[in-house]
Amino acid sequence: MSKFTSRLDSATRTNRSLVCIGLDVDPALMPIADVRKFNRAIVDATKDLVCAYKPNIAFYEALGLEGLQALRDTVSYIRKVAPDVVLLCDAKRGDIDSTSIRYARAIFDFWDFDAVTVNGYMGGESLSPFFDYADRGVFVVCRSSNPGAQEFQDMMVLPDTTELGMDGQGQKMPLYEWMAVRSSEWNSNGNLGLVVGATSPDQLCTVRLRCPEVPILIPGVGAQGGELEMSVKNGIDRSADGSATPPRVLINSARGIIYADRSTGGFPDGARNAAGKLRDEINCVLEQEGAPW
Amino acid sequence: MSKFTSRLDSATRTNRSLVCIGLDVDPALMPIADVRKFNRAIVDATKDLVCAYKPNIAFYEALGLEGLQALRDTVSYIRKVAPDVVLLCDAKRGDIDSTSIRYARAIFDFWDFDAVTVNGYMGGESLSPFFDYADRGVFVVCRSSNPGAQEFQDMMVLPDTTELGMDGQGQKMPLYEWMAVRSSEWNSNGNLGLVVGATSPDQLCTVRLRCPEVPILIPGVGAQGGELEMSVKNGIDRSADGSATPPRVLINSARGIIYADRSTGGFPDGARNAAGKLRDEINCVLEQEGAPW
Repeated sequence: MSKFTSRLDSATRTNRSLVCIGLDVDPALMPIADVRKFNRAIVDATKDLVCAYKPNIAFYEALGLEGLQALRDTVSYIRKVAPDVVLLCDAKRGDIDSTSIRYARAIFDFWDFDAVTVNGYMGGESLSPFFDYADRGVFVVCRSSNPGAQEFQDMMVLPDTTELGMDGQGQKMPLYEWMAVRSSEWNSNGNLGLVVGATSPDQLCTVRLRCPEVPILIPGVGAQGGELEMSVKNGIDRSADGSATPPRVLINSARGIIYADRSTGGFPDGARNAAGKLRDEINCVLEQEGAPW
Repeated sequence: MSKFTSRLDSATRTNRSLVCIGLDVDPALMPIADVRKFNRAIVDATKDLVCAYKPNIAFYEALGLEGLQALRDTVSYIRKVAPDVVLLCDAKRGDIDSTSIRYARAIFDFWDFDAVTVNGYMGGESLSPFFDYADRGVFVVCRSSNPGAQEFQDMMVLPDTTELGMDGQGQKMPLYEWMAVRSSEWNSNGNLGLVVGATSPDQLCTVRLRCPEVPILIPGVGAQGGELEMSVKNGIDRSADGSATPPRVLINSARGIIYADRSTGGFPDGARNAAGKLRDEINCVLEQEGAPW
């Protein structure tokens, strides 16, 4: 088990939570203008209810260098007040090797994130600079949560699966599934994660069967309308005897939590209530499925 | 023709050049430590020899907020001293719609780039916020220049091509080609560009046939060993009568130009000589192919 996976397991168990809060700051929705203060208040109100925080870096880049300064503050604040919580940077990075080296350096060395989301279109070789950070997590996008995800990700592809020792040659499968299969081959450091949207529970089931025990980030519950119950059920790993434990799954919600209450005085409590409700709903499904904490 | 394409045509014609210089700043290779001064000197020495500058934002992100401050300076300096040259941000961005809105805002509004490179794995719907900036260019990665590009991009896929009015159903083609075909469908504003590495001249030929007149960014000549002559030849668009004009192609070189001479006093002249040589080599091929300026 990699240091990252162990860190994630510890974070989920400590707070008995699979909730990941997306810190997607939007001046049009925030009840206060100061990004630093907003994030600090959200973190203070929720840090015992989550396993991870996931700032989507695009939302900070859109605010220019000031936005990135605020992200810097947010990261160091979380490190101080919630040192055990996982810090995941949603960045969907991916480029040729010599460029990926720089992205990895930025995300892991400069920003000091525990994990990052990446795009595998350029192949495993292009992502190796990320995986080389053996103590950090690398989440490869398999099936995204957007309405147009199927355009490429659900296309049938014709891999030559003989190299993997699987049955048959030229076995067809959707591209997202092949991405999961290939990703497992890049996992020599045990620090692989995958991204599968809550909007596609069937695809999540397929990916979990292909990649047992691999952490899966599941965005898209809440505002995007993803299926919470099926996401939790399909994310569960079952051992040979049918027993189950809370899965390596991060259920991400951003808008549904941080903008649950948009009043200046009430937003921290609003976020706390929404995060707690999501955690309880998830834990209820885990109980029903015989996988309690 | 979009404002971006017209701007690109004007830039290439003015300097009679298809050369794009990759401003990939690397402290380990730069003869002087100051990124601002280094870039200014490179720009001063080459601005009459190029059609575009392409900072790869990863190299600046790796240097933290100071690196991004230096990029800010570089962009505004280029706008001042070379207002007609195209400024392309190599960022390979791509995420769901609500996130792409933020990336587009960052690249086009905050950074004020003319164009950006993007990743289409999440589908055309996810990239629409970039294409909605009708006066900016959006370069979709089809076939990248890295050794592992073939892992997904050359896989045979089974699109249902009937919707495009093409011959046959379930016609097989490689994923990179399908990416080019689909990209053309997203081009209602005429601001599409494509990325095809110089390391794969056959794939470039295929993409050019699928997408006549679309600007193509060709990275990978020089340090990556790409084929210059074939890249230029295969990038040329021929009209029905066989006549040809200089193509909408940007031949990118980074290391081969900006680190051609690594001495403190000599690097600007070294870059100028390397850029001039590349421009001349390209123009020589254009002459031979009956497509002179």
